Amino acid sequence: MTVALPWSELAGRALACCTEIAAFTEQPGCTTRTFLCAPMREVHAWLNTWAASLGLETHLDAVGNWHTTRPSLNPDARTLILASHLDSVPNAGAYDGVLGVVLGLTLLEALRDTPLPYHVRVVGFSEEEGVRFGVPFIGSRALVGTADELLGLTDAGGTTVAQTITAYGLDPAALPEARLREDVLGYLEFHIEQGPVLEAEGRPLGPVEAIVGQARLNLRFTGWANHAGTTPMGLRRDALAGASAFVLAAETLARATPGLVATVGSLTPFPGAINVIPGEVWLTLDIRHARDEVRQGTLERLLAEGQRIAWERHLAFSHEPRMEERATPMDPALTSLLVEALAAEGLDAPAMVSGAGHDAMIVAPIWPATMLFLRSPGGVSHHPDEAVLPEDVAAALRVGARFLTLLAAREETRTPFQEDTP
Amino acid sequence: MTVALPWSELAGRALACCTEIAAFTEQPGCTTRTFLCAPMREVHAWLNTWAASLGLETHLDAVGNWHTTRPSLNPDARTLILASHLDSVPNAGAYDGVLGVVLGLTLLEALRDTPLPYHVRVVGFSEEEGVRFGVPFIGSRALVGTADELLGLTDAGGTTVAQTITAYGLDPAALPEARLREDVLGYLEFHIEQGPVLEAEGRPLGPVEAIVGQARLNLRFTGWANHAGTTPMGLRRDALAGASAFVLAAETLARATPGLVATVGSLTPFPGAINVIPGEVWLTLDIRHARDEVRQGTLERLLAEGQRIAWERHLAFSHEPRMEERATPMDPALTSLLVEALAAEGLDAPAMVSGAGHDAMIVAPIWPATMLFLRSPGGVSHHPDEAVLPEDVAAALRVGARFLTLLAAREETRTPFQEDTP
Repeated sequence: MTVALPWSELAGRALACCTEIAAFTEQPGCTTRTFLCAPMREVHAWLNTWAASLGLETHLDAVGNWHTTRPSLNPDARTLILASHLDSVPNAGAYDGVLGVVLGLTLLEALRDTPLPYHVRVVGFSEEEGVRFGVPFIGSRALVGTADELLGLTDAGGTTVAQTITAYGLDPAALPEARLREDVLGYLEFHIEQGPVLEAEGRPLGPVEAIVGQARLNLRFTGWANHAGTTPMGLRRDALAGASAFVLAAETLARATPGLVATVGSLTPFPGAINVIPGEVWLTLDIRHARDEVRQGTLERLLAEGQRIAWERHLAFSHEPRMEERATPMDPALTSLLVEALAAEGLDAPAMVSGAGHDAMIVAPIWPATMLFLRSPGGVSHHPDEAVLPEDVAAALRVGARFLTLLAAREETRTPFQEDTP
Repeated sequence: MTVALPWSELAGRALACCTEIAAFTEQPGCTTRTFLCAPMREVHAWLNTWAASLGLETHLDAVGNWHTTRPSLNPDARTLILASHLDSVPNAGAYDGVLGVVLGLTLLEALRDTPLPYHVRVVGFSEEEGVRFGVPFIGSRALVGTADELLGLTDAGGTTVAQTITAYGLDPAALPEARLREDVLGYLEFHIEQGPVLEAEGRPLGPVEAIVGQARLNLRFTGWANHAGTTPMGLRRDALAGASAFVLAAETLARATPGLVATVGSLTPFPGAINVIPGEVWLTLDIRHARDEVRQGTLERLLAEGQRIAWERHLAFSHEPRMEERATPMDPALTSLLVEALAAEGLDAPAMVSGAGHDAMIVAPIWPATMLFLRSPGGVSHHPDEAVLPEDVAAALRVGARFLTLLAAREETRTPFQEDTP
């Protein structure tokens, strides 16, 4: 492996790239880049220039995913995908998504003189955040061929995904061609952690072994709204006191269940007046775990606890599901290879779980996929203060290069026969 | 004491009067009657007709309080006031306020042939609920001479109290004359309880010994808003979990403090999204007790508990006062006389506390005042379902007549000398 520049210098350049791309925005003064917005053209042009400097060709697929491929000398080689997304939430930081694409290109640049027995395709997905159309992963779903049903989605102004694609100069009818049909040996996504775990553990990087499954529910406690002055404590049926007991029960149960998170993010008492005992409370529950049976079992216990609280307090309790997603394991062999690369670079990094969804979740059912998280200072993300440490970026590049080398060794020992008997 | 009709028949007529008056409304289909609204003219006309049938004269004072006086044969007699209010909340029931005025007139009718050694003045206050101008008790404050500062208050449309008075055909400049300067021996207000205590105790009536003092506060817990998926339970600073612990602490402390009520009526988490741990929660506290030192002591303990919860959870806790009103004791001698009247009518009715404010609270610092509560079925008030039982109204009339008789006996033994040495 020959690297043109020291890793620290490449890391510094990668961070500078992210900062430059953050300036391409729909909202002056902050970074906001939704699906195929005008400034996405500037991002694409910027990436095209970089790829051209490496002698690579680029193209956009039907949903605006940006692609470049460094071909292997072996024309029959399989393909490794290095990908993440180029869109952002409103008023975003500079690294969520973009960093993964930039690190992919930086690795191509670092290893430009190192022959590899597989093609390396870097993909910048056009959409992952779900901001404009309320449904995320338009980019990665197109890559695996499950985006058809998204074309008719409308944004707040009534414009469809298909119309947005056409307005950008692309052809929604070409969507089937966006599906990648080549032989993919693996998918690796670099991404900031967007949480505080690595920082709390004092680790720069974390290999991801699974993306959590999650359920979201609407809950309701119903009691008896009454006068705050004339109703003695013993004659109350206070829906907010019941809901409060539920919030604490969710916290207690989640704390007692390793790896589980449960959150009441929204809670609204009715009528919500200072001098009226709340007669009804609407609240939400978000519950996640890497093992679906743990999540489902805990949720059942928690809903039973809600019923118990309601019974004790002469309230009614009801719940309705809003969303459920199963957990997505990353590919064990590819993740092991990543752990091996981390160890080879002197990093002891136990595999961790992603508590948020990522494009890797969409491609994992089709191709072997894994992720490498970079420490998020302060756990901050989806905010202008989002950051990443230069030394962590250098470490991610070293580990990435090591991973590509290990993968090359593995690929070279692979017989074509293995391909058909996984 | 000679009564023209059986009490049950008088009670039925009183209830029918309330129903007729409920039809005078600003909003067709429900009962809404704010300060000096047009339908208040119909109420006044209706009361004038009734008073005229009893041979009594009536007038409106400068803030639209309706007055009629049954003079004593002794022109030097003092005055007993029987009063309550004629305005209502939006979409009200038929009894809150109006019942007290109707019972006053019914007693005058019942006792029309019984001589009394004091004048009896029935007053229907023009405003008690505070709906239109955000500040209650315009009527009773005018009667005791503390309404001057209210004339400039504006409603949502920018109209002042003074302009409203002028538009009704009255003269705001005559406000000083609305202050009652005659020699008042007592004030009695009949009112529905608006709470569930009498019903829970199986009693029709309750003499009131005090109106609670209350404090209202804005509270705030501040933690750290973060991603509901990527932030493990152990690394959270969840402001909603802290606020929930506070809601339960308030309930526990109030339950352990006899006569105290504490209510969190409003609670708002920020940002309030299903997948974000709340970083801040705003909530309100309403705390009431008949003894100010008990209320203040409990509030101090509860705020200390809020600080403890915040400290334990690495949150910040802050509070600011919104309103504080001291408790108002009723006149002990007049309340004793009411208890005596209840006992004479075979009713064992321990003195109770009013958890809500009433006009009696405004006049109590100036004149000896007391109240008699009538049981509220279901504790319902400020709602079209507000009710009162005919047998409870009959009992209130019997007790009221007995009270007037006992008061007559007391007044007859009073020497003029006492007047100047209270």
